[in-house]
Amino acid sequence: MIPTCPIPLDRYPIVTLAHGDGGRLTHQLVQGMFQRVFTDRELLRAHDGAVLETPWSRIAFTTDSFVVRPLFFPGGDIGRLAIHGTVNDLAMCGARPRHLSVGFILEEGLAMETLWRIVCSMGEAAEEAGVAIVTGDTKVVERGKGDGVYVNTTGIGSLEHELEIHPATVQRDDVVLLSGDPGRHGIAVLAAREGLAFENEIESDVAPLAAPVLGLLDAGIDVHCLRDVTRGGVATALVEIAETAKLAIAISEVAISSDPAVAGAAEVLGLDPLYLASEGRFLAFIPAAQVGDALAVLARHDVSRGARTIGRVAATPAGEVSLDTTLGTTRVLDRLAGATLPRIC
Amino acid sequence: MIPTCPIPLDRYPIVTLAHGDGGRLTHQLVQGMFQRVFTDRELLRAHDGAVLETPWSRIAFTTDSFVVRPLFFPGGDIGRLAIHGTVNDLAMCGARPRHLSVGFILEEGLAMETLWRIVCSMGEAAEEAGVAIVTGDTKVVERGKGDGVYVNTTGIGSLEHELEIHPATVQRDDVVLLSGDPGRHGIAVLAAREGLAFENEIESDVAPLAAPVLGLLDAGIDVHCLRDVTRGGVATALVEIAETAKLAIAISEVAISSDPAVAGAAEVLGLDPLYLASEGRFLAFIPAAQVGDALAVLARHDVSRGARTIGRVAATPAGEVSLDTTLGTTRVLDRLAGATLPRIC
Repeated sequence: MIPTCPIPLDRYPIVTLAHGDGGRLTHQLVQGMFQRVFTDRELLRAHDGAVLETPWSRIAFTTDSFVVRPLFFPGGDIGRLAIHGTVNDLAMCGARPRHLSVGFILEEGLAMETLWRIVCSMGEAAEEAGVAIVTGDTKVVERGKGDGVYVNTTGIGSLEHELEIHPATVQRDDVVLLSGDPGRHGIAVLAAREGLAFENEIESDVAPLAAPVLGLLDAGIDVHCLRDVTRGGVATALVEIAETAKLAIAISEVAISSDPAVAGAAEVLGLDPLYLASEGRFLAFIPAAQVGDALAVLARHDVSRGARTIGRVAATPAGEVSLDTTLGTTRVLDRLAGATLPRIC
Repeated sequence: MIPTCPIPLDRYPIVTLAHGDGGRLTHQLVQGMFQRVFTDRELLRAHDGAVLETPWSRIAFTTDSFVVRPLFFPGGDIGRLAIHGTVNDLAMCGARPRHLSVGFILEEGLAMETLWRIVCSMGEAAEEAGVAIVTGDTKVVERGKGDGVYVNTTGIGSLEHELEIHPATVQRDDVVLLSGDPGRHGIAVLAAREGLAFENEIESDVAPLAAPVLGLLDAGIDVHCLRDVTRGGVATALVEIAETAKLAIAISEVAISSDPAVAGAAEVLGLDPLYLASEGRFLAFIPAAQVGDALAVLARHDVSRGARTIGRVAATPAGEVSLDTTLGTTRVLDRLAGATLPRIC
């Protein structure tokens, strides 16, 4: 249930260039709309930036711009995606998400009510993920120089452990876990964009991943590397990790399989599910001895209930990811190339 | 002197959608171009985010998206503006700029060499300001859905003092300093956009402001509030501060005057210089007893050599900014409204 837009729609039904000039209408938009939903004390103090206490000796810092098309899709919208996308990048550093900045680039003519829906969705998502939106910025570009809304979110998270969670920390014989079935986000967005209807509507998996990650850390799992599966899919993520780690990764096509509805839709669209984006799934590299404990932790969180072992790290061939296919053959995976899937996030 | 673009221009003369899909070409752009110029260790580690040491108990955190048109203008370009704009917002919190994130939204068809010039400019500006670019993101949108390049920069700075530098800290009888003549950036961008040629080309004042600010703090000046003069100009900045402080500010038109070339250009364009943007000027609110010391500090830095006293804070009428004009009359100032000056930053 979205509350009524607080901007008087009879006077300001759309975003105008003056909403971005830093003057009276920018002030009205910030105070009248954004500060109704984003109510952190630092944001309301309205200075050039937020001043934050940092009692931790290490923080994670990450940025993402979101240009997804369409703005609304089954299971989410650009606002929810912008919050959880950055929250998840912080979680993948092993950090507890704490503070976010939000930068809007709005297109002149955007319906004010559309912006309000997105802002409300961001407020809800931030609450769900336990992060505070503490500073922001708004710009407006002329009609035809944008696409409704682009959002940048940049985040700060606290590191409350001593681990080095990084591709370079991956070890030979590590086991690779995947937190659930991949590809739902990619199919949901592509289907919405192309106006395709499948028998069962596939919803994006966009969700915050910090809770299961912090669960692994709290349980004392010696996590070597984490990576959320976004643009480029499972295959691209694994190739990047294998190259940085200078190790080999062997994975099983059976273990990695998508939900049948996602796999079917990918086939119709001529796409390889291994390269489809998720926005609520992650890879974890952990010592073999802790696999049972790790899977038990992941099973306790809805978002990672479908966690499974998908492969293992070996010494050679360094930098290579191989897939044991359902046909019994082996295929070497590369980064996404060729089949362009733009504006998925 | 800009070095040769490291991307082979015969093969990739322009940015394509595939440069933003997270696959092979994104990787090539990040590794082949961005990491040639942005060489901080954390950025090169290529993880989902940067991990940073934070030995300070307080940090400042601020974000800005840049959509300036045209991308290049006398005295600067979108890259230099994006670095110094965020560096300056950190400085206005009284922080030493430390770390920046960079998020690009590129338009399909952008000349690769244009991107390279902007990236080189950002690298130079970051070095000049003493900040490290530690994490980034790149997205590409279709032709006609952007305008070449939009850049978001988000920054972290360290607070190494106990002051509360904020509009709410402004005191009755504080003196208002302005660090130099205002409005050069606004005129430079508008002239470049409209193809206007003035007898003497006016250059943007875009420059990093942390050095004079840290100079004031090091000298023990009890700085109450700082504000850089960007969108909305001196007038809008003062109105926002007066309203937050619930105090009155009286300023003198003579003291605030722009360079004659800027004032003349503003007259030709029908603009009030009080509302023109600067990108290298700031307001400082300090106790009257420290004005001499403060001006002596500011005179030591090129960027604030033109610092002057422009006014004073009074108790009433609360929230109001009044201007003593050169005609001997008094005029109450309001936020920028009406004369829209979009995409100045």
